[in-house]
Amino acid sequence: MSPRVVALGGGHGLAASLTALRRVTTKLTGVVTVADNGGSSGRLRRELDILPPGDLRMALAALSGDDERGERWVGVLQHRFGGDGPLAGHALGNLLIAAIWDILGEHVAGLDLVGELLGSQGRVLPMAAVPLDIEADVHLDAAPDRLTVVRGQAEVATVAGQVVAVRLDPADPPACPEAVQAVTAADWVVVGPGSWFTSVMPTLLVPALRDALVSTSARRLLVLNLAGDAETAGMRPTDHLEVLAAHAPDLRLDAVLADSSMVDDHLGRAAGELGAELVVADVARARGVDQHDPGRLAGAFSRLLGQA
Amino acid sequence: MSPRVVALGGGHGLAASLTALRRVTTKLTGVVTVADNGGSSGRLRRELDILPPGDLRMALAALSGDDERGERWVGVLQHRFGGDGPLAGHALGNLLIAAIWDILGEHVAGLDLVGELLGSQGRVLPMAAVPLDIEADVHLDAAPDRLTVVRGQAEVATVAGQVVAVRLDPADPPACPEAVQAVTAADWVVVGPGSWFTSVMPTLLVPALRDALVSTSARRLLVLNLAGDAETAGMRPTDHLEVLAAHAPDLRLDAVLADSSMVDDHLGRAAGELGAELVVADVARARGVDQHDPGRLAGAFSRLLGQA
Repeated sequence: MSPRVVALGGGHGLAASLTALRRVTTKLTGVVTVADNGGSSGRLRRELDILPPGDLRMALAALSGDDERGERWVGVLQHRFGGDGPLAGHALGNLLIAAIWDILGEHVAGLDLVGELLGSQGRVLPMAAVPLDIEADVHLDAAPDRLTVVRGQAEVATVAGQVVAVRLDPADPPACPEAVQAVTAADWVVVGPGSWFTSVMPTLLVPALRDALVSTSARRLLVLNLAGDAETAGMRPTDHLEVLAAHAPDLRLDAVLADSSMVDDHLGRAAGELGAELVVADVARARGVDQHDPGRLAGAFSRLLGQA
Repeated sequence: MSPRVVALGGGHGLAASLTALRRVTTKLTGVVTVADNGGSSGRLRRELDILPPGDLRMALAALSGDDERGERWVGVLQHRFGGDGPLAGHALGNLLIAAIWDILGEHVAGLDLVGELLGSQGRVLPMAAVPLDIEADVHLDAAPDRLTVVRGQAEVATVAGQVVAVRLDPADPPACPEAVQAVTAADWVVVGPGSWFTSVMPTLLVPALRDALVSTSARRLLVLNLAGDAETAGMRPTDHLEVLAAHAPDLRLDAVLADSSMVDDHLGRAAGELGAELVVADVARARGVDQHDPGRLAGAFSRLLGQA
């Protein structure tokens, strides 16, 4: 029987885990960070006062049907307008999601409708019912001796400096009830990979969702990133685990999945401190490449989730 | 057997004839004027250099499936963004058509894909393969003694004055080959109702399409409007027929359908001069209301097309 799996995160990291997990289970839910304030999503958020739709669109695309119809509509939804006019840079799928929300007045029903269009296997949900902002404490390269508050997902993701911690604004947003329910009913919860401070940590900061993650009877799997990005420059895998523990002190893990290239002498012990077994596998596209290979990641998930 | 019917025009008039004709035949093609330069279509045309999609969208909506799925997606495609930002006023369906054209590079395949989404009965085609402009000779109210050239569909449609004639720019645009083919293979061709100078006459001005209309073995039905709009203020139904004869001198008709409220002593003779029988029916929603009733119009079409 297919395990019920919930994957949390955002952006390309969540799309990678969903692309792999759909090969392992048919009962799949993606729970998406809704704090993006950059690009097409940021413009739509400011113009229409809606949840940023971009990461939701990418997650839906990752779950789309692999038949001709699914591929055709994914191509349409991922298409971005060119030129330098008012539409330039907008993904059609973002506009479609915005229009459907406007009509239905329901985030979840709207995303289900788009999923139906794409022939999606599984479901995509926002982590919160309101748009969020990220605020980070950062040792800026330009002012390393003190903490500076940097605001905005796009700003934090590209900051020149060492991020120490992130918060949500509002700090106590309403969770998406269906997301809480999915975590509670899951057999496995998968956190990461993805931008650690701006996509992954936020999923642990929505109070009702964090409570569900802490109390669910599901097994909890953390997937570590392959390499650092701007917001985690200089951080080792053990630092990533420490950051997680600092942002969600009550959260225990069952497994930490790391690419073999990322393993050092301390990682096993650090995973153990969170209650987790360290699972090492070759899951990168190639050695040194900062992209998970969907097939390899699916293989690792399959062995872990008992579907091999 | 269902007759092959082609309806030509644009805007609300064509949507009305398609809504009625779909009750009479399953082999229905709408051929749409592509000269709009106002509203969402005009903005998209200027920003993306594409055919104005709005009237095509409306025609597709008129042919959409009447099940829940069809109605849901029609609602999405007809939805307009509100507010006063860069998206305000754009119909989502216009943006969808624009994106699909950008991906496929094919007008007809793109419209077929949207029709598939809507579960459309029949097909919608542009009358020409390039965007067009309308130029009109007008006796302006402000300068009634001479002819003034007014340019742009939106400008002509709302002009304060008496329109005498319209032209296309470019004057010899390439027709949509599938539209020419549909007219050639049709059993019936239905021209009008609709904005006489800016939606209906332009369908007679694309050379290859006009040649097909003149030479087809199909029977030709002209549907007269219910009342005047700005561009036809003061014109009687007989004047509408004279305008048609002036714009397409070679075109013979088989039938002219008029609401009983629009018939005067001269209309039968004027129809006869075009080779047509005058068919009188109550096809308005109510006496004096400037909207065709879909059921009544379908009834009149059904009697005429031999499907009653």
